[in-house]
Amino acid sequence: MTHPLAARIAQIEPFHVMELLQRARELEAAGRSIVHMEIGEPDFPTAEPVVAAGIRALQEGRTVYTAAAGLPALREAIAGHYLDRYGQAVDPGRIFVTPGGSGALLLALALLVEAGQEVLLPDPGYPCNRHFVRVLNGIPRSIPVGPEQHYQLQAADVVRHWGPRTVALMAASPSNPTGTLLADEELSALAAAVRERGGALIVDEIYHGLTYGIEPASAVRLPAFVVNSFSKYFGMTGWRLGWLVVPDGYQRAAEKLAQNVFISASTPAQHAALACFTDAARTVFEERRQAFAVRRDYLLPALQDLGFRVHTEPQGAFYLYADCSGLAKDSFELSRRLLEEAGVAVTPGLDFGSHAADRHVRFAYTNALPNLQEGVRRIAQFLEQGH
Amino acid sequence: MTHPLAARIAQIEPFHVMELLQRARELEAAGRSIVHMEIGEPDFPTAEPVVAAGIRALQEGRTVYTAAAGLPALREAIAGHYLDRYGQAVDPGRIFVTPGGSGALLLALALLVEAGQEVLLPDPGYPCNRHFVRVLNGIPRSIPVGPEQHYQLQAADVVRHWGPRTVALMAASPSNPTGTLLADEELSALAAAVRERGGALIVDEIYHGLTYGIEPASAVRLPAFVVNSFSKYFGMTGWRLGWLVVPDGYQRAAEKLAQNVFISASTPAQHAALACFTDAARTVFEERRQAFAVRRDYLLPALQDLGFRVHTEPQGAFYLYADCSGLAKDSFELSRRLLEEAGVAVTPGLDFGSHAADRHVRFAYTNALPNLQEGVRRIAQFLEQGH
Repeated sequence: MTHPLAARIAQIEPFHVMELLQRARELEAAGRSIVHMEIGEPDFPTAEPVVAAGIRALQEGRTVYTAAAGLPALREAIAGHYLDRYGQAVDPGRIFVTPGGSGALLLALALLVEAGQEVLLPDPGYPCNRHFVRVLNGIPRSIPVGPEQHYQLQAADVVRHWGPRTVALMAASPSNPTGTLLADEELSALAAAVRERGGALIVDEIYHGLTYGIEPASAVRLPAFVVNSFSKYFGMTGWRLGWLVVPDGYQRAAEKLAQNVFISASTPAQHAALACFTDAARTVFEERRQAFAVRRDYLLPALQDLGFRVHTEPQGAFYLYADCSGLAKDSFELSRRLLEEAGVAVTPGLDFGSHAADRHVRFAYTNALPNLQEGVRRIAQFLEQGH
Repeated sequence: MTHPLAARIAQIEPFHVMELLQRARELEAAGRSIVHMEIGEPDFPTAEPVVAAGIRALQEGRTVYTAAAGLPALREAIAGHYLDRYGQAVDPGRIFVTPGGSGALLLALALLVEAGQEVLLPDPGYPCNRHFVRVLNGIPRSIPVGPEQHYQLQAADVVRHWGPRTVALMAASPSNPTGTLLADEELSALAAAVRERGGALIVDEIYHGLTYGIEPASAVRLPAFVVNSFSKYFGMTGWRLGWLVVPDGYQRAAEKLAQNVFISASTPAQHAALACFTDAARTVFEERRQAFAVRRDYLLPALQDLGFRVHTEPQGAFYLYADCSGLAKDSFELSRRLLEEAGVAVTPGLDFGSHAADRHVRFAYTNALPNLQEGVRRIAQFLEQGH
């Protein structure tokens, strides 16, 4: 390459699961059946009322730019969602509609992090977070989190790891890959510890709504940057639509940044998303939440019976983060062999950080119950053969 | 504000025209008629065959993530476009489908620019470019360009302004706000000068297709990063879809960056965009190109008759960058008064940089001919009244 390449590129890892996916596609093209338990995307199509609203928007010619912060009606609908679901009043002026949760993460970090400044993140965690920090020339500091703190950073971690160059802490509740939540009081303590140090708390709530038997509060009640998305609970992955709630005082900065970096989020997607807050759509979303709960309730004990250890019961998202150290020496190798020999695709721990990554794999229950059952059957057979 | 705020935010300016737009909306809400000549978006809705393809995609449930680099069929269709229109063979593996041209600009700069490194840009130019550089902690170096070089950076500017920290040069052909082109040989010379210094050339071609009486070559024939978009010629602004062609050797870096920063571009938009390369859509696009040509051919002499000076005939985009120094002392003040007193909205030069910005306004001919005629009539009346 004769052109320059920014140093950050060497620090950004590809998704390791992509290699496995590529291999899975080759196997499928060759006629092999593969059970997919690696995919971080609901298997349900976008709900009919939302699709219908999208089609209507296109028929009505809603294809021009919106305001950079989003359609006023959508910002108000999101504010209404916080009031209905959480009893929290949020000024729509603090809500910025973005191209996916990805856009919201970029916007929040670009508002906060300068070159050379540090951001604390949990390891394991969503891999893109540390890469967003690197894109902005910040330094991601991955803090190992284990089951004893249900894989969530705690106020004590802030005390221990906050340094002179630290400006922000990123949390996700429910977490990807662990599905665990920050309890309301833990989140409050975390926010207080960060605030005392003059830093900012960024809370990723993109799996909110997909919790089972528990209704967590939203971090919008705190002075925090709250990232959310229409992808998961609302089932709009490919439409690429999310939002960011900024603390009071950041509105003007967020607006000018969004104007310059995005122009606006997708207009048809924004019109479609308005239908997410109708009763018809909510009924579909809640049915799907129940389906996910049923899958989790099947998969968790089934994997435990096979010898996988899930140290903390996950309460949300659609993932199980399973310790496979009793079954294999290396989780990446296990992932590879499960694919090749058992026809089951899972995500190796390596994609979520380096802390005990070689002892864990992530199972996604984004597949119908009979397929999960088939996957478990295949893994059982693989393990019985004493690989 | 008790939270931190990254220093870059202070260096990112909002679009000044937004204030005028806001005021225009207030005036319209109060019953005033405003002729809009400030809007950087075609007034034509998305072409029917493209909308129909989008509706079909939604009906078929095409709402899940695509590969990070985009739908293979779309990357191939874009490669086909380079072959059909420019006679240039481009490997589809070098084409990355992005969330708008904005996503392509971010991707290109994130691949190239490290903290503290410089990027050369023309002033006047697209304002977001320097802000993208700032988001990535680079230093935008705006180089004044005048009519004597038809507002385009030349190889001589590279010789003069390239420094030890310079890594890239951004050009746009046709340019926003000036509508001027880089001639093929100028572009080649620019590329050679940048290359000799080990730097990268980024060429924004988002107004390609909207040229009048001239068919420029594409920079894909060079080792350059080429940014394009479905927004302008293809009329898909609100769908937020663009693409980046990377030089050979950057494919893997671009892919992992796109995976992490975007996940993927909008899926319904990508399916809709496939229809952009059909004969039916091309017919609509070419009709619209003709309409823009007719408007330009009316507006340019009409403004000159009023005393605006357009020093270099624009050959593309849908803008006229007009010197108003013979009519008013300050272009921002003129913009304000044209809005308040004449009911005509234009964009002040200030939005495009600082070089002679107070002597220029940008007229967009993204409005039907009768409206442009009415705008000219109003401006004439305003000027006659000896404001």
